[in-house]
Amino acid sequence: MARYEGVSNFVIRRLPRYYRFLGDLLKNGVDKISSQGLSQRMGLTASQIRQDFNCFGGFGQQGYGYNVQQLHSEIARILGLQAGRRTILLGAGNLGSTIATQMQFSEMGFSLVGIFDVSPALIGRRLNNLTIQHIDTLRDFCAAEKPEAAVLCIPRSSAQEMVPQLIALGIVGFWNFSHYDIALDYPDVAVENVHLGDSLMTLAYQIRERADEKDG
Amino acid sequence: MARYEGVSNFVIRRLPRYYRFLGDLLKNGVDKISSQGLSQRMGLTASQIRQDFNCFGGFGQQGYGYNVQQLHSEIARILGLQAGRRTILLGAGNLGSTIATQMQFSEMGFSLVGIFDVSPALIGRRLNNLTIQHIDTLRDFCAAEKPEAAVLCIPRSSAQEMVPQLIALGIVGFWNFSHYDIALDYPDVAVENVHLGDSLMTLAYQIRERADEKDG
Repeated sequence: MARYEGVSNFVIRRLPRYYRFLGDLLKNGVDKISSQGLSQRMGLTASQIRQDFNCFGGFGQQGYGYNVQQLHSEIARILGLQAGRRTILLGAGNLGSTIATQMQFSEMGFSLVGIFDVSPALIGRRLNNLTIQHIDTLRDFCAAEKPEAAVLCIPRSSAQEMVPQLIALGIVGFWNFSHYDIALDYPDVAVENVHLGDSLMTLAYQIRERADEKDG
Repeated sequence: MARYEGVSNFVIRRLPRYYRFLGDLLKNGVDKISSQGLSQRMGLTASQIRQDFNCFGGFGQQGYGYNVQQLHSEIARILGLQAGRRTILLGAGNLGSTIATQMQFSEMGFSLVGIFDVSPALIGRRLNNLTIQHIDTLRDFCAAEKPEAAVLCIPRSSAQEMVPQLIALGIVGFWNFSHYDIALDYPDVAVENVHLGDSLMTLAYQIRERADEKDG
């Protein structure tokens, strides 16, 4: 498919939100929606929405409104949600097992095919229809199964050690829950970081700002 | 303390990352660092770093470098990490229990004081030294304990129902893992969303773009 060069990161980050909102509209039986209608539901301006959509060629006629089903499918296609990219997860502890069992990987472009850990207590356990395997089997597994993406639910030092090996084994995208800054060392791979601590600290800032506003 | 008006959201979101990097430097015994030194480690330009710091009054002399300990403490203060804001968590399922046990709330400005659920199977269980309580006890708990923040690990429909009640009970900040868009209905409260699905879909986009680039 066509690539979308020069689309800003901010626009890309809004796509999943559009996709979710449109999915809700579909569930509620809404067939058509104007950019005004979408803007009211999403807290964006209609002009912002039209600008965002123009990055991908527009979709649909102004005045007439967007076909919700068509727009939903187009955004799914742009996001690559049908790709089913084979994915492994490293680190089957508390966080890793939550991610493995709670995330709807297949609805988001991925297919979880292997889970790895080093802890003897976890190896052999079943998680989401997969058996947790020892990390020593990773090389053979990748040679046979050719996963493209890896979810890292491991400490930073382990991530730093594993990432170059994973790239050598063919991994091109990382969903990174560790604090190891992959993009700094490997700018060519796709990385999406989830830094829960950073998110919580940002909330601390927001609450403090509002509290100080009240006080002063 | 002084409020920092007009500081962009992008700058605020970089603060936790600065804080983490400075914490690492401290652990490694580094006392002084230049904006150039920090820029190399963080993948930002030195000019960007100086601009960011200028939003908060600068910190330290150019040429001479920043005092790492002082800068770390200043950023902690700006983020409000010493606040220990009393916090409750709603939804003690898979995700909620992982968040309750894995997050270092006290290091990030919060103190987890109560966990609530509706499932009879979970009520009475211990999690992170707290007993999971039935949501029916929430009103009395809040009257007595006066929490300021809530972590929402509950489905969207439950979040939509609970948020107005929580605001009425004194909650001013939400760490929101649900897909309910709190800020749209309540623009005055502090909200930090963690949309794991959006993050995963963004990774799908990035991998697709890179794959299409290769293919031509």
